[in-house]
This record gives sequence, structure tokens and C-alpha cells, in this order.
Amino acid sequence: MTYSEKSLNQFANDLASKAPVPGGGGAAALVAALGVALGSMVCNLTFGKKKYAEHEPKLREIVAEATRLQQALMSMIDEDAQHFLPLSRAYGMPQSNEAEKAEKARVLEQALKEACSVPMRIVAVCREAIDLHADIVDRGSRLVLSDVGCGIQLLKAALICGELNVMVNLGLIQDDVFVVQVRETVHRQVEAGKMMADRVYSRVESLLVQ
Amino acid sequence: MTYSEKSLNQFANDLASKAPVPGGGGAAALVAALGVALGSMVCNLTFGKKKYAEHEPKLREIVAEATRLQQALMSMIDEDAQHFLPLSRAYGMPQSNEAEKAEKARVLEQALKEACSVPMRIVAVCREAIDLHADIVDRGSRLVLSDVGCGIQLLKAALICGELNVMVNLGLIQDDVFVVQVRETVHRQVEAGKMMADRVYSRVESLLVQ
Repeated sequence: MTYSEKSLNQFANDLASKAPVPGGGGAAALVAALGVALGSMVCNLTFGKKKYAEHEPKLREIVAEATRLQQALMSMIDEDAQHFLPLSRAYGMPQSNEAEKAEKARVLEQALKEACSVPMRIVAVCREAIDLHADIVDRGSRLVLSDVGCGIQLLKAALICGELNVMVNLGLIQDDVFVVQVRETVHRQVEAGKMMADRVYSRVESLLVQ
Repeated sequence: MTYSEKSLNQFANDLASKAPVPGGGGAAALVAALGVALGSMVCNLTFGKKKYAEHEPKLREIVAEATRLQQALMSMIDEDAQHFLPLSRAYGMPQSNEAEKAEKARVLEQALKEACSVPMRIVAVCREAIDLHADIVDRGSRLVLSDVGCGIQLLKAALICGELNVMVNLGLIQDDVFVVQVRETVHRQVEAGKMMADRVYSRVESLLVQ
């Protein structure tokens, strides 16, 4: 059973439990999926309305892309959890002599690098989804504008959670070249994503008081 | 079937669809529940560890409260959706003469006030849950500190979404006394909640680089 087949209650209870997964990474993927879904909802509630007819082709493109991102994020809940076992195994490896120590360090380093991959993808997808919301805010039905605002807040939070999960793993990795490269890539996406998210949210607020 | 019994996939697809509920309010309640659950997880992963034994009584209290809040938030997904039908009915009422217009305005005003209640509770519960995380950050296991950081980001996002949903309804309500009172209550909670969330997140970041 994948996480996406579990009930909301079951997932929240699993999250709250002392089981190590799902954790913050899985929660971030789910929250990002909900943020993307709110963008799709706004598009779907705009279709067929005369007032917004000119925007329909662009909004159709956005929904197609958002649907793809939503599915990818749902799968990431499971993919993130799958990285826990190799990490946990690596931590449990013996280190009673130099050879064992070296082997443990090698396996752990590899597992930590792999554990960065899902939160890195969460960051990249949130960045992309925030841009989709930027394209929705002035094209979607004004009646559901607040849902764009909610979507953007969820994506911004998931973006920051993704970043935090990358950073926690990076802090334990020895390969400095890898660390610097990943940190710079993620940092650039997060800063750009946060700035765009704030801009979209301000736009929602200014349109709502009109 | 309650929303909390639906699968993650089903809920995200319902959210993305053109059905008017669930929307941003329901998503905010779910995201807040996930934020609270991450706080519980950190407590549950701290219990039984010698190093943190002195904090266990306080963390047990926090988990009890967090569990109560998580359940309340899960129910709010349904409660928020239940406010949509009366609103939709009110908008559909006839207004072909003065008597009908007055009656429609009266029913709509009532429905809008009631639609404020769930997002107001989401704001209040997020405010409380953020304070719980403030109590966890220096007491929970350092190994899962990043989950406190994720929890606080989700709660901050849900807090802002709750506020936005209150404001959208307030903008349509005629009763100025009600509007001012609700706006001030929510504004105070949101400002305090955001400030505390930022403080907790900064604390997470500073502890992680130690």
C-alpha cells in the first residue's frame, strides 16, 4: 500500500507516531501536492466562464502541468520514506576496526547523498508550482482567488521544509564538492521561490481588497 | 464518509477538481493537523531516552494536547465543507422584489458569519499549536529537530490560510461591529502566531548549525 492510498487520519497518525517515517519530508511532499491541487481547482472552476474565456488555453496548459506535479509529489511521500532504511542500516554497521569504520563511512556517505534527492526534488517542484500560481493569479476566477492565496502559502511552506531536509543531510556529508553544489542549487531555488510566493500572495491580497 | 477517512490521493483529487469543496479552508485544516502531528512525532521519538528524561513529563502533556488538536483539525475539514451549502443556497435565493431582497440579504449575512467560524478556529488552534512547538524545540530529541522546523512551517502556512479565509467572508458581511471584532481577534492571533513561528524556526536553525 502506498502512502497516497492511506486515509488522511491514518497518515496523520503515522506521522504523529514514533515510527521514523513518514516524517517532515513526506509531510512536505503531501502539503506541496495540496498546494498544487488548489491551483488546479482554481483553473477548473474558471473553465467555461465567458469572462475568463481568453485565459482558458493558458489555464488548460497549467492544469496539465499541475496534475503531473501533483502525482509526482504524491509518489515522493513513498520515495522519501524508502531512503530511511539504507540510512538506518548504515548507522547500525559495525565499526570495531579501521576497515569496518571506513566501510561504514562509505556506505553512510552514499545513503546521505541519496537521502538528499527527494527533498531536492520537492524544492524544485515547489519552485515550479509557485510559478504556475503566478500564472493563475491574474487569469483565474476572482471568486476563488483566496484558494490561490492558500495554495501559494502551502507551496512556500513545503519549499522551506524541503530545504531544511536537504540541509540536515548535507550537514553530515563529507564530500565538500557535493555539499557546496547542492547547497547552492537549493538555496537559489528557495530564495527565488520565496520571493515569487510573497509576490503572488501580495497580489492576491491587493486584488481581494479591490 | 468523513474527509479524514478518504485516501490522500482521493482528497488531493477532490481538492483539484471543480467541486467547490474541499477548498483552501479544508486544506488549511489538514495541513495544520500534519503540523501538529510532527510535533507529536518529535515527542514520541524522545520518550525513553535518558538524555531527555527530565523533559518527559512536560512532553507527555504536550502530546496529549497535540493529539486533541489534531483530532479537532481533522473534523474541521468536514465542518468547513458543511458551511458551503447554506452559502450556496443563500446566493441562489430569488430577489425579484424588496421583501425577497431583504430576506436573501438576511440569510446570506447569517451564512457568511457562520462560514467564518471554522477558519477562525483554525487560526486559534494553529496559534496554540505553534506555542506547543515552542515548548518542544528545546526539549525534544535533537535527532528529529528538523521535524519541529517542518511542523512550525506547516502551522504558520495554515494560520495564514485560516486568516485569508476569514477575511474573504468578512469582506462580504454588512454587520460592521461583527467585522471589526472578528478582524481584530484574528489579526492579533495571526501576528502573535507568525512572530512565535519565526522565533521557533530560527531556534531550530541555530541548533542545527551547532
